[in-house]
Amino acid sequence: MKTLRIQLLLTGDELMSGDIIDSNSALIAKKLQAEGYSVSRRVTVGDNVELLKQEIAALSSMSDVLIVNGGLGPTIDDLTSEVLAQVVVQPLEENAEAIAHLESWCAKRNFKLDGPNRKQAWLPKGVTIVPNPIGSAVGFSIDHNDCWVVCTPGVPSELEKMLDQTIIKEINYRFPGLEKTTVSHLPVFGLGESKIQQMVIDSMPDWPKSVELGFRASMPIVDVKLTTHTLEGEQQRASCIARLKALLGAHIISEQSETLQQRVVGLLQQQGKTLATAESCTGGLIASQITSIAGASAAFEMGIVSYSNRIKSHLLGVDPETLECHGAVSREVACQMVQGALVQSDSDYGIAVSGVAGPGGGTDEKPVGTVWVAWGDRHKIEAELLYFPGSRHYFQQMVAAVGLDLVRRRLLNIDEPPLYFKQRKYKASTLKGKR
Amino acid sequence: MKTLRIQLLLTGDELMSGDIIDSNSALIAKKLQAEGYSVSRRVTVGDNVELLKQEIAALSSMSDVLIVNGGLGPTIDDLTSEVLAQVVVQPLEENAEAIAHLESWCAKRNFKLDGPNRKQAWLPKGVTIVPNPIGSAVGFSIDHNDCWVVCTPGVPSELEKMLDQTIIKEINYRFPGLEKTTVSHLPVFGLGESKIQQMVIDSMPDWPKSVELGFRASMPIVDVKLTTHTLEGEQQRASCIARLKALLGAHIISEQSETLQQRVVGLLQQQGKTLATAESCTGGLIASQITSIAGASAAFEMGIVSYSNRIKSHLLGVDPETLECHGAVSREVACQMVQGALVQSDSDYGIAVSGVAGPGGGTDEKPVGTVWVAWGDRHKIEAELLYFPGSRHYFQQMVAAVGLDLVRRRLLNIDEPPLYFKQRKYKASTLKGKR
Repeated sequence: MKTLRIQLLLTGDELMSGDIIDSNSALIAKKLQAEGYSVSRRVTVGDNVELLKQEIAALSSMSDVLIVNGGLGPTIDDLTSEVLAQVVVQPLEENAEAIAHLESWCAKRNFKLDGPNRKQAWLPKGVTIVPNPIGSAVGFSIDHNDCWVVCTPGVPSELEKMLDQTIIKEINYRFPGLEKTTVSHLPVFGLGESKIQQMVIDSMPDWPKSVELGFRASMPIVDVKLTTHTLEGEQQRASCIARLKALLGAHIISEQSETLQQRVVGLLQQQGKTLATAESCTGGLIASQITSIAGASAAFEMGIVSYSNRIKSHLLGVDPETLECHGAVSREVACQMVQGALVQSDSDYGIAVSGVAGPGGGTDEKPVGTVWVAWGDRHKIEAELLYFPGSRHYFQQMVAAVGLDLVRRRLLNIDEPPLYFKQRKYKASTLKGKR
Repeated sequence: MKTLRIQLLLTGDELMSGDIIDSNSALIAKKLQAEGYSVSRRVTVGDNVELLKQEIAALSSMSDVLIVNGGLGPTIDDLTSEVLAQVVVQPLEENAEAIAHLESWCAKRNFKLDGPNRKQAWLPKGVTIVPNPIGSAVGFSIDHNDCWVVCTPGVPSELEKMLDQTIIKEINYRFPGLEKTTVSHLPVFGLGESKIQQMVIDSMPDWPKSVELGFRASMPIVDVKLTTHTLEGEQQRASCIARLKALLGAHIISEQSETLQQRVVGLLQQQGKTLATAESCTGGLIASQITSIAGASAAFEMGIVSYSNRIKSHLLGVDPETLECHGAVSREVACQMVQGALVQSDSDYGIAVSGVAGPGGGTDEKPVGTVWVAWGDRHKIEAELLYFPGSRHYFQQMVAAVGLDLVRRRLLNIDEPPLYFKQRKYKASTLKGKR
């Protein structure tokens, strides 16, 4: 059986200049992957008529499906429709379906249909409209070079709706019965890519060839991926997953492709428990990650960002003498912050973090990257000193992830400490010796 | 003068599958742009030896500089070195400089230099090393097809250091005196792309051809970009910027390419003022955006995430009767939340938000997307009811941005209300009528 050749063409000066980061190709790939398709190649060019013409002509001649993304908007630098018309040698015309959509879209918002918006209805003759249930620009498709060319908008939410409601259905309809790829994901927290690969090589030298093992580090998670293309691989998959689970243990955060915050909110909801946060160096990041999950309100009532010592005492009841004596970045203060969060919120579990995010504020004894993480419930509060030197962004992301991971472990009654307690241990003496 | 032809080749199954979003090409483009260079085209392919060979051969034959990114890591799916060796027809050998770097890198971390890591030193004969001051994998470069081919790691922080410390210097050294592009940015909040373009067309029909006007919507900001390639454009730039400023007024959030949080923290620091947050529906996002900025501690002491009514009363002193009578999503509650934040923190300014993020929790009267934003100081607290229907993510991002924008306007004593008060106004009656 042949595999479908799908290629992407991303357009936009803003993508070439780095003014925006391309998240759309990931969205497209994910949606296609869920149906067993994969993208073999993608090309990105700026808003340049000649370059776009060349690429649409070239890519359509070497693929079964070409998804063009971007350049459908109202402004002068949106060129996709004009370029496609030239490539397929059709005139541009005001598309009746597109103009009807624009009129209804504007009417709902009490907007006047202005010139720039009206431009979005000028499409090559002969295209089929891909409805846009959210935004003003419709998508459109046409067959060219024995390839289905479909043009989609750059706005991610609009693209997503088109993929779900039209494009993937159309691909399934056009290309039935192709060989499909299956992928399983095991998200791992607290072990690096190289470490995981070495563990697999050491303990599973007989890993079957029919199951491709891949790694993808996406801070703070490493996603361990098993990909199969054949029936034989399909049959080996379950035993491979079982062996990886035995090897990596509780470092696997979920059996699905989930983030730490999804997993933690899910566990809290299942167990009918609540969590409160008291954050210093992460400044609300843990709370915002939790509350980014729909339905978090059942599991989360309160977060306090206590950036100053005064607020640590005033809102979390941290003893000013403890602050004076041990400093804000200390086991004692982190534990009292958890205690305070539990008392103030009456929640079941609490996390607190206090550390030096940098770039300023480090000392010889507590350099940038040092953090005390404390977590627990009314019966038992634990704390750990860890060390994540690096950028402020990296530090905040890692510390938030550790906080969530430790609550996940507590919710699952996992007693064995994670390997990162050892690897990320902060040793003041070692460090000093090295200076 | 000719323009330098720079192309990028991004590699990695994780980029093709959508498991990670490619932020590296934006990083590369930004760094090059700051020096006046632009990237004309980029191609992304998975970890496949044949595809990579084809692309390196093809791209190097049509560019002056080819930056290859990714595939330098320790795992089996990291193929760049092997593929480059085949393309340039050189044997792989253990590079002395690379192995010395790996040994020192591991020693500093008390890591054992294992097989997977050691693989990172096997490089094509004849390459020049690009030092990696942070990570284990060195970069390397070689001339091929009259093109400088430079291979860089996928880890963004490592890539960034290599660009700054080696690659851009090398490009400047190799290609002196080329014509360069200059770009100015005006970040705008609260006006859409189409609206801004219409305003420009209406009020500046005589816009000079030598200054390219571009727009880039990167939620929640629209970046208005002026690009010039010639001396004539260079001379027109200042008057174009002045006219845009007069047209868009306080919707321009900064004269530099800044985020709202950078601007707000900068203004607070300049004025020696502090800000406190009381967040319901944004769940700590505003606080975490503020504290993501280095030096925020001078301007920010406290944030409270009051996700439940109980916490709103208990920590922010919101009157339970007010909550009962008006509901949590009301002018009265939002204003009392600001008041409470000011009292608890003794800060100069406060922001509070209370709304319905969705997807659940909406009612006919207060549907998903409704939000009360309140902001002010001890003398004056204002509040506004706005409406941002859409995904939870979109809602939270927009509401956080509005909160920051309104504080920015207060800090600058801007009395004129932003246009989005009108455009995003929530009208319960209109909405009901339409149902």
